[in-house]
Amino acid sequence: MSLTTHGRSVFLVILFSTAVGACQSPPDPRRTVSLVVTGGTVVTMDAQRRVLSPGAVAVDGREIVAVGAPAEIAGRFAARETIGAIGQVVLPGLVNTHTHAPMVMYRGLADDLRLMEWLERYIFPAEAKTVSPQMVRVGTRLAALEMIQSGTTTFADMYYFEEEVAQAAKQAGLRGVLGETIIGFPVADAKTPADGLRRAEAFLKRFRGDDLIVAAVAPHSMYTLDREYLAASRRLADQYGAPLLIHVAETQDEIQTSEKRFRLTPFRYLDSIGFLGPRIVAAHCVWVTPEEIPLLQKHRIGVSHNPESNMKLASGTAPVPAMLAAGLTVGVGTDGAASNNDLDMFEAMRQAALLHKLESGDPTVVGAYTALEMATIAAAKVLGLDRTIGSLEVGKRADLIVVGMRAARQTPVYNPVSHLVYVTRGDDVQTTIVNGRVLMRNRRVLSLNEGAVLAEARALSARVTEAVRQ
Amino acid sequence: MSLTTHGRSVFLVILFSTAVGACQSPPDPRRTVSLVVTGGTVVTMDAQRRVLSPGAVAVDGREIVAVGAPAEIAGRFAARETIGAIGQVVLPGLVNTHTHAPMVMYRGLADDLRLMEWLERYIFPAEAKTVSPQMVRVGTRLAALEMIQSGTTTFADMYYFEEEVAQAAKQAGLRGVLGETIIGFPVADAKTPADGLRRAEAFLKRFRGDDLIVAAVAPHSMYTLDREYLAASRRLADQYGAPLLIHVAETQDEIQTSEKRFRLTPFRYLDSIGFLGPRIVAAHCVWVTPEEIPLLQKHRIGVSHNPESNMKLASGTAPVPAMLAAGLTVGVGTDGAASNNDLDMFEAMRQAALLHKLESGDPTVVGAYTALEMATIAAAKVLGLDRTIGSLEVGKRADLIVVGMRAARQTPVYNPVSHLVYVTRGDDVQTTIVNGRVLMRNRRVLSLNEGAVLAEARALSARVTEAVRQ
Repeated sequence: MSLTTHGRSVFLVILFSTAVGACQSPPDPRRTVSLVVTGGTVVTMDAQRRVLSPGAVAVDGREIVAVGAPAEIAGRFAARETIGAIGQVVLPGLVNTHTHAPMVMYRGLADDLRLMEWLERYIFPAEAKTVSPQMVRVGTRLAALEMIQSGTTTFADMYYFEEEVAQAAKQAGLRGVLGETIIGFPVADAKTPADGLRRAEAFLKRFRGDDLIVAAVAPHSMYTLDREYLAASRRLADQYGAPLLIHVAETQDEIQTSEKRFRLTPFRYLDSIGFLGPRIVAAHCVWVTPEEIPLLQKHRIGVSHNPESNMKLASGTAPVPAMLAAGLTVGVGTDGAASNNDLDMFEAMRQAALLHKLESGDPTVVGAYTALEMATIAAAKVLGLDRTIGSLEVGKRADLIVVGMRAARQTPVYNPVSHLVYVTRGDDVQTTIVNGRVLMRNRRVLSLNEGAVLAEARALSARVTEAVRQ
Repeated sequence: MSLTTHGRSVFLVILFSTAVGACQSPPDPRRTVSLVVTGGTVVTMDAQRRVLSPGAVAVDGREIVAVGAPAEIAGRFAARETIGAIGQVVLPGLVNTHTHAPMVMYRGLADDLRLMEWLERYIFPAEAKTVSPQMVRVGTRLAALEMIQSGTTTFADMYYFEEEVAQAAKQAGLRGVLGETIIGFPVADAKTPADGLRRAEAFLKRFRGDDLIVAAVAPHSMYTLDREYLAASRRLADQYGAPLLIHVAETQDEIQTSEKRFRLTPFRYLDSIGFLGPRIVAAHCVWVTPEEIPLLQKHRIGVSHNPESNMKLASGTAPVPAMLAAGLTVGVGTDGAASNNDLDMFEAMRQAALLHKLESGDPTVVGAYTALEMATIAAAKVLGLDRTIGSLEVGKRADLIVVGMRAARQTPVYNPVSHLVYVTRGDDVQTTIVNGRVLMRNRRVLSLNEGAVLAEARALSARVTEAVRQ
């Protein structure tokens, strides 16, 4: 339709409209969609790094159907629900590449301890006595509340009773890449790694094809599992086309264990047994050597970088600038709240940006935009979901957040991307949308009963206190 | 009065009260005070590390008159104003040992750059064209708003037109240790360091004896000032008994400059010219060697540690665990918002706790309580104010904050001190009190017009954008 024709038809419509008066409106030529978010600075994180200021995003059902100027979107779409975002930033939902959601139940239980004392005196006793389907359910609800409130829309997770994590995440409306942990010693939901493998396969079957949950296989690590179970995990993942979530090269202890047992680094050992291959999400990668980076490239390993956990547990600093320079995909994660102590991805981004400047002595490394990529599109790619989420583009799922940018600590605004990384916190997130569903609007969480979630977590915490006291 | 006598008099009062009925109340035997904060977990930061849970603090005028159990305080004092703090934490106001408040006007203007490019392309041009009494006033109001909102009650500051910083701080109700900058090149308020010295003395005279402002002398550094002005600064400080605020050993460049010019490290050079002595607040101290620590001890140098700025500018890591082990007093600071990018002392505490664990490879160093000390009582001691502020004790000034502890990311609570350091942000502060005056109550700032402060800062930011564009 030419502009002239368009102009003429508008003229006719006006005449018609005048003739019938207020009694009857002409049919709206615009497409009706479920949701439009409009008026904010839209940071798309697309390949062209487009920032629309102001911009708008149209959503229909679970998909993004348009990204453009507010006037353009208003001209093309009639929205059943409109969210105004003037003075705010609209961003893809944040993607947490590594956590253990139910461990929020242990946050702040013990800090400032050596890893072995922390594990043996606090975390293992607490887990031995309190991990149960109910604890995992209650903990995941609390974690989901925190994630929704701080703008995380997708999380990668491995823990016990992972089916409870999946159910709680779905009910809260969050997207997850979730794996039932397979580990070499008896745990709450599996007496043996063989039990763990069976539970992992049941989990894969149960959540196959789910709209929000990607079922993964989650062998804990090369130092807590024998070769046969690592190999079986890889076979299971290949059989189902599932991601593999695993901890690799987190601490110097792990390196020493690996060298002593196999005369190989953890990655070289995993390579030697045929474990490496597609769809691996390797958490930590702190002690990766420069010589190993080509091995990670060859197998397109997705790296989950957890700077806060690595600092708090004194694990070390992952060679992120070298990994990025080599073209590896690196996403950030929070790790579990027992070692962070929260699930705020804004803190994780900021810490990634600050840590590598210090470590390298070069303030130009891991700039604000890179840090933001590591929490959005790069994180999505680490999880194998970059065709579905991670940027605001037509055809992708509508996972987006609206972030306030008017606080005193965000004033003035010269560069919204700088502010997102260096001065914004999860609490600035106003609205969280996953798969087109509004989970929080203007700080009011809609998909969970906040008071009930907090109350049940507080009630359960008495059992945790009891467990570590004995 | 013995308990028996006390019991008897209560009995008589009850009888009397019954006789006169509701028409007339008996005289309240309790002392009337201006303010009681009651019901929260009171973390006193006193020498006994007392934590009262629940506790209460009674304030009369500008002073703390009692700290105790809620029932005890209620029995002893009738308060004209009561602030309930159930489920919250009551803490001494946070003390920021190093900042440049007006630089909030440059926050996020340029990031991720090498120091020289950052300074020469952005900060110096912006300062040359925009520093003025008005800019300092507007910037300090914005900084004061942010500090009040994030629980900082005292800040140490050096900038230009410092009398405007002082006036704005007083109006906002904040306590400050403030010094007019003396520097070797022409700046907005002084063509020469001699001008700067004269302005510094005028500042000392003007604010002498002020109830909120401690006037300091602020020679910028050993590499931006000739020996005669450093010596003159020390004499001026001695004449007025004033603190000396100075940057020392911040970057490797500074060390190299000092070694090249004087064949001495910055601290040894300052010692050689008689500058070292009482009341020094030395910001950064990144490149202090183990051999220099006794020199700092000898002169009781107060160390201001600025972990976020040191990370973002890739300056390096101060040897804080070694300094603490040697008995030096170390407080944390945010540095200016151009290199942080905010004034949130909770972030500074957290970063101090995390950074030194990583650097030392030992997760037990700079534990949560130590980090909290570095933002309260130790910071007060760095500034020479530990007899006046920094802990909740009878006779000290009533500088205190009430911090929310019920957010999802703070649930459950096993240890409030852990949560203050590892999961709390400035935005959790509900109420801020300085010198007995309530500056913010339940997130409503009372001493500043928030909307006007933000609007004038935004208006002024256009001039900054213009200045760096040219």
